[in-house]
Amino acid sequence: MTATTRSEHDLLGDRDIPADAYWGVHTLRATENFPITGTPISAYPHLIDALAAVKEAAALANAELGLLPPEKADAIVAACREIRTGKLHDQFVVDVIQGGAGTSTNMNANEVVANRALELLGHEKGQYTYLHPNEDVNLGQSTNDVYPTAVKTATVFAVRGLLKAMAVLQDSFARKAVEFRDVLKMGRTQLQDAVPMTLGQEFSAYAVMIEEDRSRLAEAVELIHEINLGATAIGTGLNAPAGYAEAARRHLSEITGLPLVTAANLVEATQDCGAFVQMSGVLKRIAVKLSKSCNDLRLLSSGPRAGLGEINLPPVQAGSSIMPGKVNPVIPEVVNQVAFEVIGNDVAITMAAEAGQLQLNAFEPIILHSLSESITHLRSACLTLAERCVDGITANTERLRATVENSIGLVTALNPHIGYTAATDIAKEALVTGRGVAELVLEKGLLPAERLAELLRPEVVAGSGAPAA
Amino acid sequence: MTATTRSEHDLLGDRDIPADAYWGVHTLRATENFPITGTPISAYPHLIDALAAVKEAAALANAELGLLPPEKADAIVAACREIRTGKLHDQFVVDVIQGGAGTSTNMNANEVVANRALELLGHEKGQYTYLHPNEDVNLGQSTNDVYPTAVKTATVFAVRGLLKAMAVLQDSFARKAVEFRDVLKMGRTQLQDAVPMTLGQEFSAYAVMIEEDRSRLAEAVELIHEINLGATAIGTGLNAPAGYAEAARRHLSEITGLPLVTAANLVEATQDCGAFVQMSGVLKRIAVKLSKSCNDLRLLSSGPRAGLGEINLPPVQAGSSIMPGKVNPVIPEVVNQVAFEVIGNDVAITMAAEAGQLQLNAFEPIILHSLSESITHLRSACLTLAERCVDGITANTERLRATVENSIGLVTALNPHIGYTAATDIAKEALVTGRGVAELVLEKGLLPAERLAELLRPEVVAGSGAPAA
Amino acid sequence: MTATTRSEHDLLGDRDIPADAYWGVHTLRATENFPITGTPISAYPHLIDALAAVKEAAALANAELGLLPPEKADAIVAACREIRTGKLHDQFVVDVIQGGAGTSTNMNANEVVANRALELLGHEKGQYTYLHPNEDVNLGQSTNDVYPTAVKTATVFAVRGLLKAMAVLQDSFARKAVEFRDVLKMGRTQLQDAVPMTLGQEFSAYAVMIEEDRSRLAEAVELIHEINLGATAIGTGLNAPAGYAEAARRHLSEITGLPLVTAANLVEATQDCGAFVQMSGVLKRIAVKLSKSCNDLRLLSSGPRAGLGEINLPPVQAGSSIMPGKVNPVIPEVVNQVAFEVIGNDVAITMAAEAGQLQLNAFEPIILHSLSESITHLRSACLTLAERCVDGITANTERLRATVENSIGLVTALNPHIGYTAATDIAKEALVTGRGVAELVLEKGLLPAERLAELLRPEVVAGSGAPAA
Amino acid sequence: MTATTRSEHDLLGDRDIPADAYWGVHTLRATENFPITGTPISAYPHLIDALAAVKEAAALANAELGLLPPEKADAIVAACREIRTGKLHDQFVVDVIQGGAGTSTNMNANEVVANRALELLGHEKGQYTYLHPNEDVNLGQSTNDVYPTAVKTATVFAVRGLLKAMAVLQDSFARKAVEFRDVLKMGRTQLQDAVPMTLGQEFSAYAVMIEEDRSRLAEAVELIHEINLGATAIGTGLNAPAGYAEAARRHLSEITGLPLVTAANLVEATQDCGAFVQMSGVLKRIAVKLSKSCNDLRLLSSGPRAGLGEINLPPVQAGSSIMPGKVNPVIPEVVNQVAFEVIGNDVAITMAAEAGQLQLNAFEPIILHSLSESITHLRSACLTLAERCVDGITANTERLRATVENSIGLVTALNPHIGYTAATDIAKEALVTGRGVAELVLEKGLLPAERLAELLRPEVVAGSGAPAA
Repeated sequence: MTATTRSEHDLLGDRDIPADAYWGVHTLRATENFPITGTPISAYPHLIDALAAVKEAAALANAELGLLPPEKADAIVAACREIRTGKLHDQFVVDVIQGGAGTSTNMNANEVVANRALELLGHEKGQYTYLHPNEDVNLGQSTNDVYPTAVKTATVFAVRGLLKAMAVLQDSFARKAVEFRDVLKMGRTQLQDAVPMTLGQEFSAYAVMIEEDRSRLAEAVELIHEINLGATAIGTGLNAPAGYAEAARRHLSEITGLPLVTAANLVEATQDCGAFVQMSGVLKRIAVKLSKSCNDLRLLSSGPRAGLGEINLPPVQAGSSIMPGKVNPVIPEVVNQVAFEVIGNDVAITMAAEAGQLQLNAFEPIILHSLSESITHLRSACLTLAERCVDGITANTERLRATVENSIGLVTALNPHIGYTAATDIAKEALVTGRGVAELVLEKGLLPAERLAELLRPEVVAGSGAPAA
Repeated sequence: MTATTRSEHDLLGDRDIPADAYWGVHTLRATENFPITGTPISAYPHLIDALAAVKEAAALANAELGLLPPEKADAIVAACREIRTGKLHDQFVVDVIQGGAGTSTNMNANEVVANRALELLGHEKGQYTYLHPNEDVNLGQSTNDVYPTAVKTATVFAVRGLLKAMAVLQDSFARKAVEFRDVLKMGRTQLQDAVPMTLGQEFSAYAVMIEEDRSRLAEAVELIHEINLGATAIGTGLNAPAGYAEAARRHLSEITGLPLVTAANLVEATQDCGAFVQMSGVLKRIAVKLSKSCNDLRLLSSGPRAGLGEINLPPVQAGSSIMPGKVNPVIPEVVNQVAFEVIGNDVAITMAAEAGQLQLNAFEPIILHSLSESITHLRSACLTLAERCVDGITANTERLRATVENSIGLVTALNPHIGYTAATDIAKEALVTGRGVAELVLEKGLLPAERLAELLRPEVVAGSGAPAA
Repeated sequence: MTATTRSEHDLLGDRDIPADAYWGVHTLRATENFPITGTPISAYPHLIDALAAVKEAAALANAELGLLPPEKADAIVAACREIRTGKLHDQFVVDVIQGGAGTSTNMNANEVVANRALELLGHEKGQYTYLHPNEDVNLGQSTNDVYPTAVKTATVFAVRGLLKAMAVLQDSFARKAVEFRDVLKMGRTQLQDAVPMTLGQEFSAYAVMIEEDRSRLAEAVELIHEINLGATAIGTGLNAPAGYAEAARRHLSEITGLPLVTAANLVEATQDCGAFVQMSGVLKRIAVKLSKSCNDLRLLSSGPRAGLGEINLPPVQAGSSIMPGKVNPVIPEVVNQVAFEVIGNDVAITMAAEAGQLQLNAFEPIILHSLSESITHLRSACLTLAERCVDGITANTERLRATVENSIGLVTALNPHIGYTAATDIAKEALVTGRGVAELVLEKGLLPAERLAELLRPEVVAGSGAPAA
Repeated sequence: MTATTRSEHDLLGDRDIPADAYWGVHTLRATENFPITGTPISAYPHLIDALAAVKEAAALANAELGLLPPEKADAIVAACREIRTGKLHDQFVVDVIQGGAGTSTNMNANEVVANRALELLGHEKGQYTYLHPNEDVNLGQSTNDVYPTAVKTATVFAVRGLLKAMAVLQDSFARKAVEFRDVLKMGRTQLQDAVPMTLGQEFSAYAVMIEEDRSRLAEAVELIHEINLGATAIGTGLNAPAGYAEAARRHLSEITGLPLVTAANLVEATQDCGAFVQMSGVLKRIAVKLSKSCNDLRLLSSGPRAGLGEINLPPVQAGSSIMPGKVNPVIPEVVNQVAFEVIGNDVAITMAAEAGQLQLNAFEPIILHSLSESITHLRSACLTLAERCVDGITANTERLRATVENSIGLVTALNPHIGYTAATDIAKEALVTGRGVAELVLEKGLLPAERLAELLRPEVVAGSGAPAA
């Protein structure tokens, strides 16, 4: 009969571990100590992959420096590679929000890797005399360099996904900018009718915003490539032999394909969360712009009768149980909410970063959690917005053109052509009578019809230059 | 010839003080140490008055307990009363954001009171052997009970001003609710046309929001009446004799007219900033609602042609240098910005409160600063919004009624009267043809004209009850 | 052979639904539209229970008013009761962050209740001609009154759990306050040695803080009892018959046991998120205090040799992989992180509340999400802190007493007994020589040993009154 | 007799203006409309200079294009140059927080420049027929391009001041790092004793943090060099002739010496506040690091007896009125508060940026206000921290060394040299007996004294490499 548990020991005593668990006693303690969110770190697959990559890189470096026997190193590397193919992720069970500066996450990784490596070596799980979670898997490492390095690596991968999603959304807006390049409309400042523009210009602005944000995000992610692997406890590299930091970085770069750099000052790098604050600040910037764009889409599609009614968002679900035919801007609305979440997360990350003390910031787990959430939710939001909303937007071209022809603001555009005095008189008459400016200009013979039409040509209005005089 | 300076001494050595300055060497050091904002505490008159009130109450309590000779006490009390009538405020020169948990503010007060009291006693400023800033004016006190008590007293007075301003704004909205009670319009959810309501209901909601916020603010200010005067350094009342705390509280209540209460646990009260966090949280709530109401006002007044154009805000200044006749919603806009400021201040207050350590929160100066700013700017914003915007709002009644009659959402209201099938058919036809629902209902004979008119009567739409069947 | 799918229809067309799913086409669309967080609303059991309670109350009210046949009402009520016993929760699959102001959550509830009721009536799932999700389950309702009412009800239940957990933590601190009532220590202000106190007073302050916060939370939750059920779309109660709002509220109060109140102004109540902002503000206050207390615990337990070393937190897991014997304050650290999360969530809630427009706030789903997270994580944090940390704290009594006897600050306490001049001399000598104040006072014969001992008795230091002269 | 007022006219009617005022009717309206903060824009001298620079550049561009007669242009340029030398700043009287997207600030500038130019031309103030605030000074411009351009220019200049102040602080920390390079101390993680390091390393980390933040700030300010001058109302350049944007930018670059760039997409640039959000995010990052460093300084200097007592901050003022000799960390405390303010301002800026709608963000005035406050307060904080605190810090070298020799954590460093088993035994014995690790190692003959001394040499501990085996 097979035992259903094995016994493991730590400084607090002995504990029974389920025989089939790859995690061990340290992980068990952590699950008991941190029953906070119910979300295990396995919900962050980029983090699990990154942890395995770090463990693999460390094993290779240790083997290279003759500190770890090849057999052990091979087994650790093999276990890590399995994890990086998506296996054993369910063994990463500690709560994402945890005390201990990530120690429990590191311990969970050490235990899973060790137990899988033990199996590969023909031993049973828990037979740590053959290969030890701390002494072998964690050799030359400390949570204080492993955890930040893994968080950074995971963040880089997550950000790549976001960058791609932003490109999709940018393309979507850019295609609409082309589609709507001849659609004349009134531009607005402070929600008041201003001067004419094209709907294409309006959508082009959204595309450009995202393009700029992508550049900023790409810059911010560069800063995340600087790691502190080899710093050990506080950055002095205590107990890590000469050459370890460099070898580990090199292997991690090869494994991940990332151009990682070891920080010049490891003491500083070990306590500093500045790159995460910067990253979150840029995510907040992205959120602000996305939210502004969605506010605009909701405003422009307001109606159908009592709103601006300039554009139509594609219907994606019924809008109301009691109002037949009502279609709501549910996709922009969900994007707004993601933006609010990201902005809130930025405050949490800021507080966590500020709360670091002396040689370490013990609050990186909430930074990981908030940052991951911000990045992955923004990614989903961008894709959803592109595919379920922007791609299907149509314009109410006739209505839009009519608002221009009726608008008092048209006077501003005609100012140089009919003179300021005439313009002011037309504006006043339009206001009093409720009639359209274009109509009045034609009626009074201030401009011939074809000249007016010329001045209202989209390419003229869009400001590509003054029309021929 | 009169000397232009006098010499004063502290633990760091001797310093020349301008002969006519009521402040002394401790204040001088503080002005040199904290050149941060350039805003002296004299910019917070409620705080100066409150400091004087606390010093007066302490002197009266000390005299009553036989700890301070009557002559000294009388001089201190007289000096404090002068300050409370607005004199000598310009002598409160330390920067509002300062280190030292408010020590410099307390020292500034001790010095000004002492020097004015010295003059009243016939001595010269700086002759502290006759009456000493610390040993006499600050007798039985510590910055750690004086400063929070003064900040709380000042806050209560400031909040009273805000409560009055909110009442003015509430009345303004309520008057408009009455004025617009018969103005039919489309209600909107998610910016989409929903079902009919009256403009009076819309404005009534704004009035009710403010009314509720006033109740919350009045509750929050109650918590501010709990003071820690008598706690001295850390709440153990060290060096304050039996009876002092109670006597000082009694006198301060009499001087200020406020129902002050001494905290039951002075150790807790001395380190706890919870009441300030709560107060700021309520100010944030008020800001959120004000901002939402102003967003609505800007939206409803958008246009004049290409927007919703439901209401008109009174013009208070020219809107644009280059767009003739443009009038912008500048008053709601400035209120929005105050709201953003208040929400930002709440984060600063939150961080300052969280940063308290052990027996004291050293960061109350920024709490005072941010809280005062939030309260006084909200007060200005409410008054400005009432007097320069809401009072002058007019409705575009005809346009509003037309949007109801044209609206597809009207079908929802007619549903119970013409049946779901007919309603759906009408809705479809209206959508396809662009025609109005009311028009179609009459054309198809689904309802007689007077019945339809009955169903569109404002009191029916407003939901005071179902119309007679 | 049994079909594996059934077909359902909405305004966008036909879709296949898994035959065993209780949810229907509206839910399907929503899961496709909102692939944001991966967290379904079933992760919020209080919300699911509350939705079922609202649907049950509405069915009872509709039956009472003769609007729903008893057979249908009975089936709906039975289905809702099953859900409230925890069944079918896995059928609530829409993402918690969703557009549409909660419409998808309401639709998900309507469909699950309808399909389960259909089964109870002997029909198959999807046979909506017998009982319809919208026309029967949602009768007289709108998302805009159902969703906020359910969120409020769920919030009240969640807050009750938090209040209990806070009481547990308060008791834990209070027991330690008693245990440590005779442990003399130095109080500190601005992290500098100040004057003596007892460790019991320090812990008592933590208990009192929580007690006050519980009072504030209990007040805030009162405001959540005001609901807008019966408001329907925008608060005008359109399509809800006379008496419905009152009947539905009465039934919901009975079902939930909560003293619910219908808002006086339903238009206001339908658009206003003030009560949520207020609740979140109070949760932020709680977070601030908890975080401050945990900062203190980490500070007081710093060491063991190079820190303050005043108290010992119970070890709950190994602290470091490379530093043998290191035990870290992991429980306070996880509580700090929950506090940062709550403070961040408050910003998200604030932004969502501010973003409401006209007659509705479309962003309540993120409010629900953030508020639930804050409440449940705070609850876990309080329990964990009490049970895994505070309960096991021990004091280093001797070390603490020694710091008092050595402290310069002791001079302040002896001031009234040895005179200011002697006190200042002693302070100077202690500073220069590094010797202890108590030692010097005895050596110079300024106080007899027993008198000094008397002045250092915990009950004297704690400020229960001046010692006998 | 000279008239004391002149009359000016705007769309709301006639108003009397003080005869000696350079501002006019638009400014008067604005001061009445925005009685919010009491802080006029003259409190932001960089902004006033920047406005004058923009007006000057526009006049030169207009003259160059033949749109403005040379005489007028010369007078405008002369007036602007006076303002840029610091004259007439007191005429910029509108409140910094204002509605209208900065229109009142622009109008104030137009009026002051026009009236001074009129004087220079020999006319009286108010004789706008000779030179008009709008038609001449504002020619080819709109608030919507002038204001953001001026805000950006002002921000660049303010940031330069901050960068210099940060360099001063970095140097101050770096000098201490050198001074303390041989001071051995215990490093700490999670406030628990960890492993040895030098005090020089600790201070070096602070210097490096600031260095990195300076790089980030320099990058962020680059983005601010992109302006939208020439965009006019909404970015279409309406009414600005071909060549104007380029000429105006060129002149503004020459006047300011800044490498300004015209945005590629002016419609986007006119509505986008991303660069401000980014800048504020970087300021927040700086604030977070500064606050963390100050938290550390306060912690390391805690005591003098009952705290860590590792370093001494220079006394800059008396610490307490009732505790003789108490010196508090007032300079780090004021820096902490500035950091909280900056973090709060970031939230205000974020909300303002998010609230932009369609072609404009009407809330730039609060962005200007908050950004200016953050930059200038951070500048003061850095200089104050360097000059009044860091420069005077001394180390308690003996005490620090003793904590290392006594520390259990020393075992970790000796691990490779005495073996894991011996190390664990020593650690246990040290814990039980309270004795020092160094002492025990020597007593047991595990290492010769000189070898131990070698291992504790600062350069070894600091991790410059493993000691010779």
